[in-house]
Amino acid sequence: MAKNGKKKVSAITSMSEDFTKWYTDICLKAELVDYASVKGFMIMRPYGYAIWENMTNILDGMFKKTGHQNVAMPVLIPESLLKKEGELVEGFAPEAAWVTMGGSDRLEERMAIRPTSETLFCDHWAHILQTYKQLPMLYNQWCSVVRWEKTTRPFLRSREFWWQEGHTIHETEAEAVAETEQQLNCYADFCRDALAMPVLKGRKTDKEKFAGAEATYTIEAMMKDGKALQSGTSHYFGDKFSRAYDVTFQGRSNQLEYPYQTSWGCSTRLIGAVIMTHSDDNGLVLPPAIAPIQVVVIPVAQHKEGVLEAAYGLRDRLEALGLRVKCDDSDQSNGWKYAEYEMKGVPLRVEIGPKDMEQGQCVLARRDTGEKYVIPQEELEAKALELLRAIHDDLYAAAEQRLRDNTLDFDSVPAIKAAMEEHTCFARTMWCGNEACELAMKELAGVSSRCMPLQQELTEEERVRLGDVCPVCGQKAKKVIVWGVAY
Amino acid sequence: MAKNGKKKVSAITSMSEDFTKWYTDICLKAELVDYASVKGFMIMRPYGYAIWENMTNILDGMFKKTGHQNVAMPVLIPESLLKKEGELVEGFAPEAAWVTMGGSDRLEERMAIRPTSETLFCDHWAHILQTYKQLPMLYNQWCSVVRWEKTTRPFLRSREFWWQEGHTIHETEAEAVAETEQQLNCYADFCRDALAMPVLKGRKTDKEKFAGAEATYTIEAMMKDGKALQSGTSHYFGDKFSRAYDVTFQGRSNQLEYPYQTSWGCSTRLIGAVIMTHSDDNGLVLPPAIAPIQVVVIPVAQHKEGVLEAAYGLRDRLEALGLRVKCDDSDQSNGWKYAEYEMKGVPLRVEIGPKDMEQGQCVLARRDTGEKYVIPQEELEAKALELLRAIHDDLYAAAEQRLRDNTLDFDSVPAIKAAMEEHTCFARTMWCGNEACELAMKELAGVSSRCMPLQQELTEEERVRLGDVCPVCGQKAKKVIVWGVAY
Repeated sequence: MAKNGKKKVSAITSMSEDFTKWYTDICLKAELVDYASVKGFMIMRPYGYAIWENMTNILDGMFKKTGHQNVAMPVLIPESLLKKEGELVEGFAPEAAWVTMGGSDRLEERMAIRPTSETLFCDHWAHILQTYKQLPMLYNQWCSVVRWEKTTRPFLRSREFWWQEGHTIHETEAEAVAETEQQLNCYADFCRDALAMPVLKGRKTDKEKFAGAEATYTIEAMMKDGKALQSGTSHYFGDKFSRAYDVTFQGRSNQLEYPYQTSWGCSTRLIGAVIMTHSDDNGLVLPPAIAPIQVVVIPVAQHKEGVLEAAYGLRDRLEALGLRVKCDDSDQSNGWKYAEYEMKGVPLRVEIGPKDMEQGQCVLARRDTGEKYVIPQEELEAKALELLRAIHDDLYAAAEQRLRDNTLDFDSVPAIKAAMEEHTCFARTMWCGNEACELAMKELAGVSSRCMPLQQELTEEERVRLGDVCPVCGQKAKKVIVWGVAY
Repeated sequence: MAKNGKKKVSAITSMSEDFTKWYTDICLKAELVDYASVKGFMIMRPYGYAIWENMTNILDGMFKKTGHQNVAMPVLIPESLLKKEGELVEGFAPEAAWVTMGGSDRLEERMAIRPTSETLFCDHWAHILQTYKQLPMLYNQWCSVVRWEKTTRPFLRSREFWWQEGHTIHETEAEAVAETEQQLNCYADFCRDALAMPVLKGRKTDKEKFAGAEATYTIEAMMKDGKALQSGTSHYFGDKFSRAYDVTFQGRSNQLEYPYQTSWGCSTRLIGAVIMTHSDDNGLVLPPAIAPIQVVVIPVAQHKEGVLEAAYGLRDRLEALGLRVKCDDSDQSNGWKYAEYEMKGVPLRVEIGPKDMEQGQCVLARRDTGEKYVIPQEELEAKALELLRAIHDDLYAAAEQRLRDNTLDFDSVPAIKAAMEEHTCFARTMWCGNEACELAMKELAGVSSRCMPLQQELTEEERVRLGDVCPVCGQKAKKVIVWGVAY
């Protein structure tokens, strides 16, 4: 038995009214972040940090299962070290925060707070790597990095953000390429299984790739406003950094060789991705795998005899399943509690009051759909697990449907421009591979290249829709590419 | 059946020859750290970081059990914010790293990389705290901090170190004081149960307390050279910072009130403490609770038929107990493997070879004592668990014996000086409470005050040994105090 129990709470700006403000309202009202006194920096509050902890625990387990080990590198990079690889320093120096004083002494050389740590890892490897027997070295670091951005928004773009950066070196090119792909797939699997978020896997154009990388792979997610959020990247460096930083090893044939390198990262940005993929006008909607509270138990008329005990009993049974459960026995009203846990995106609510106790029943309410289920108490465990699974699956299915419906094929630039003015989407076209056309597309249609999908095969209908020339220059096309408006 | 299987490995400097070099050798040879290109900074390598991860997991669980929540604060503190509380800035500004440039722009106000985050927490609380109903706020942060130290040593004193900093605010003074005590006890329990390390709990003198605190409590551990290592501190601030940062709340009687505050921290220094508490001339010795590898299985004559499978079988059985196990099937010699895992402090080694297989037996060797046990294979689980427990208990007992034997009572300054010249120890005396005498003690006997033990009651014999006057000035004493040579 299901009845719709959703009610309107107007504590936040509605999505349709102002998407940007809706997003910021959720960040603040769900108590995920607070603005810091330090301009452009953010504070992760307990509830926001708990989401990040759940994400990191799952990711860390995935990394370790494939043999990666955590390390900790210094927070500072001397300018001379950062400068050894030309492209990287060009990419990151303009937005670095520079330390010039240590105590009361002016430093002989200024140091950047790490914007990313390739240089530090290479420097360390140059020091410890000797023989191919030590390879591969599969390292990861959990930390925060600083990039002096001009405009900032919580989670999406912030002068400091928290992330993991994987850094690996390998004996052969093939192994390094395989690592790059494996970690991209790891991110995509994580987004699917933990965040209920489908992503488009692809390769970045040279213009959009990571400073210094030979190839950058990306997962791009579509937000509810149709814009793209780059949600994780995996880079292949070849032996470029190894050569720049003089990282060598004694190879199998006793020659000195340069290892092949990768790096890959995802960040607190993923929290922003989750908000804009699943949430609604009542607040945050969280997929169960990362929800700090998966089920909230609300005692109704809790002053009545036995209600609190009954609520604690249900909580205990759910906790025994290994779920993260909270029983809110505070003296706030039921209405306040319902709105509060809706705002916080708790996937499932359980209500129990005197009438339910008489009937031997309790009420379960889904955050995502608002559906309510009145069930016999003995079915609590089975129904709760079933609904949590269904919430995950339905969130994923809805997001996938949106991604599919809003990924459109084009063979002309004006058509893209017109479509984007109607509604932001992912625009798929053919592409000649020239950066000039990429720049022109930005100029003419207001979109940037998101990626060249790994999936390059086309059906016959798609081939007809896309044509076989670059829509900008009309030259023979080399690749399928997806354009969009990026966060 | 036990036989002594310890053999000499001379890969590191012996403790008796040069304690300092012995320590550094272990840090490097056990691959805990590497020096970074950034002077005074350190790199935590996978094995060192894994020890820290085990420590943090246990501590984090303890903090959460008592209601603490993790948050993340910015890495930078604007100078004006740092300056609001006079004592704190005096204590930390001289050793802060200052960011003066963001990208290519000179900052209007320089910012310190956090040396500690009281100021940031207060600033945040001033923003979010409204009513007593929100109290207590029990926060913790895992991060690294930077202090521009002149001389550095891995783990013990480093320009960057990793730690947790707990920060809490409470409605009443009594609650805040109780929190300070609870967290000090939490650290002491952790040292006993996870690190097999006894500590002396006490209160710091005003001279030694944290900048800005009303009271600082400390746990002091004794290293194998008799020196003291401050291993964790817990601070009570009263409402001093609340007033400086204008943190207020609506109290029960509808008045604006200032909350009472605490902070408490422990750091990667604890890894240094573990090294100098338990290790020996063969390398690191780790208590099982924090050992990244608790049991290493070595296949002897692994090329012989069935040996590897038998070794994997033992590994699988130990892993099924929830232990962290490694089977080293590399082509290194047995001698190399034995020395390697001794260096790395793996608590228990299991050996199995063709002869053992014939006899249905395997060999267990303790890292701490070198004792070997030949046991029937079916007793593996029981014996391994028994030995791991015994290793923990024996490590603790030995450290406690050393602490007891080397904590001596004195009633005269020259006697302390003479004793210290003989062998560094903890010197217990009475004290008048005047800082002048504390400074004189440093001058005359070369020792600094470690703490005034929480345990102030004395037996009759102790009272006789200690007398009832300050040994420096001869005035009536107020407190029992312990002096030592500090790391």
